[in-house]
Formats: sequence, structure tokens, C-alpha cells
Amino acid sequence: MTLSTQISSELSLEDFLKLPETKPANEYIEGRIYQKPIPQGKHSRVQTKLSTNINQVAEPQQKALALTELRCTFGGRSLVPDIAVFEWSRIPTDEDGEIANRFESYPDWIIEILSPDQPPNRVINKIIFCINQGTKLGWFIDTDDKSVMVFQPNKLPEVKYDADILPVLDVLSDWQIKAADIFSWLKVK
Amino acid sequence: MTLSTQISSELSLEDFLKLPETKPANEYIEGRIYQKPIPQGKHSRVQTKLSTNINQVAEPQQKALALTELRCTFGGRSLVPDIAVFEWSRIPTDEDGEIANRFESYPDWIIEILSPDQPPNRVINKIIFCINQGTKLGWFIDTDDKSVMVFQPNKLPEVKYDADILPVLDVLSDWQIKAADIFSWLKVK
Repeated sequence: MTLSTQISSELSLEDFLKLPETKPANEYIEGRIYQKPIPQGKHSRVQTKLSTNINQVAEPQQKALALTELRCTFGGRSLVPDIAVFEWSRIPTDEDGEIANRFESYPDWIIEILSPDQPPNRVINKIIFCINQGTKLGWFIDTDDKSVMVFQPNKLPEVKYDADILPVLDVLSDWQIKAADIFSWLKVK
Repeated sequence: MTLSTQISSELSLEDFLKLPETKPANEYIEGRIYQKPIPQGKHSRVQTKLSTNINQVAEPQQKALALTELRCTFGGRSLVPDIAVFEWSRIPTDEDGEIANRFESYPDWIIEILSPDQPPNRVINKIIFCINQGTKLGWFIDTDDKSVMVFQPNKLPEVKYDADILPVLDVLSDWQIKAADIFSWLKVK
């Protein structure tokens, strides 16, 4: 039994995008709709804390921006990464210079946090799709195994544990974060 | 909670190999021992049927051999793949020309089947380790998602579904198998 249930089939991307947004968000992949799982404690904690940490180093100097639950439509799919990070120059804007509502390109960095009962291959496939579309970096976080699988173009992924330094975007290379740092956030007492 | 529990720590590989075998098998990874999960129905069905199918095409012409739950010790780790496939010329033998008991090299093809509650990153890390040691092909089978993630050297993995043809060892290239073929075996009634 999976939480990312397939709800319907054989719908065009155009028609999918006309549907009202749901919570949790739906994703459109090759003619099918999949609903993201309902976030639970560990997932939510890592998503919130990690996006905050990224923005603390990325935002002040306008290097990049981390956005949670942002719909990104590109390459015939409409995906909602747990965290999508865009380099500053690639953030789409409207005529007023404000951040656009519609994101129609791949994030530079995609971060997915595995939810209980979520099929890992489906989530990893989403990361691989992004990398093949232009994304430079993918993280797949498993709070159970306390590990981060790192995806980069044209190479095998690497699984990072404990004191392993996690690769970040080049524009954030001043910043260092270890796998253990992420899982330390789970400890709240 | 994971089934592949870490039982002890800080043991040499040499000392680990002197310990009695257990069921399910223990694996030795970077000074630590992890016990494989107890196989369940779907896992066992795919493991048995897939190894049988591989041997049906691989054994008659002495192309390759699929072996289940075989201990392979190499690169400082001692691993027990769900299915290890060795090309015929690489099967170790004793003085009598019989198959050896100790396998001290990487399999040419490693197949892992995800068990419920098993941390995917840990299993995938095992596949990536093998590929980095010389293994040409890795399959990571998720019976829940009905998909196979395929690993090959120096490239991003690919996730195969439904009618997608699964890459096999070059020596078995006469043979074609689809992702759906594997999951059709789960249906027994």
C-alpha cells in the first residue's frame, strides 16, 4: 500500500493544470496523477529546518532561494518537490519584479524527504527526471536510515552518513553541512 | 525502526568471518554488522523465480550463474546479495573443479529486492558499493511500486516500469525481460 496513490489516468498536462490545487499536492507524471503523502512529523521538521538553513546562507547575498511545496512544471511533468532550490538568476519574476506564481523550469537543486510507506523508487525517479532535465543536484533524505543519497548528473549516486559532508550548490560552497546535522534536528528533547 | 538492525560495532572483517553464519545472514560494512531482514512472501517469490529464470538462460551454455544468499567478501565488506550473478569464467572453483565455498570477489550483477521496513538507502548503498568495485549491473526491485531501479557504472540509475525492457548482462543479451514480467510472478491466483 502506498500513500502516493494514483488517482486517475490519461489526462493531458494542460487539463491537469486547470484542476484545483489539493493538499497534499498532486503531481502529474506521464499522463497520471499521483498525490503526495500527508507530511508527518519527521518529514515536516526536516523540510522546514533545512529550507530555513539554506535560505540563511543563500538569501542575504541573493545566491539562491529554497521554496517548499512549489509546483514546478517542465519536461511534460508537473512536480512538487519537498524543497526546490533555485539560483537567484533563475527565479522567475513578473512585470513588477516580484517572484512569479508559475514556475516552468527545473529547480537547480531538488530535495526529497522519504515519507513512511512512500515507494522510494517513485521518489528517486522524480529526482532522476529532474537531473536529466537540467537540475544540478538532488538529495534524497531517509530519516529512518539517517542518510542522504546524493544525485549529480552523469554519475552514480552516493549515500552519505554521519560526518560525511553533503555536496551543495556551487553558489553556496562557503557553506558546509554534514549528514548528521540534518538528523540532529529530529532530536527535540 | 528497521529490520536490518545493527548488532555490534568495531569488529575486524577477519573476526567477523570467523563468526557462525546466521539466518537471516549478517553483513559486514565498515566495521559494523547488519542483519538482513527475514524474507517475506513477495521477496521470496521474486528471489526464487528470478534466479530460476536467469539460470534457465544462463546455465545451459555456461554463460553465467545466479546464486541466492551467497556471501561475497571483497573491498573490505562482506555482503550477501539477494541474488548474485557471476559470469561463468568468474565462478571460483576448488582443486576438484567444483564451485568454491568462498567467494572473494564482486558479483557481475547484483539484485536486491526491497523488504518492507528495510531502509532503501542502505540497500541501494550496497548496490552502489558493488558497482564501484567492479559489478557491471545492479537491480533494485520494489515490489510495492512495481519498479526496478537499474544501476550501471558511471551513470545515473534508471527506474523501469511496466513494459520497459530491463538491461541484463551482455552475455545474456539474447534474453529479454520486462519490468512487468517480474511483478506478474506475484499474482498466484
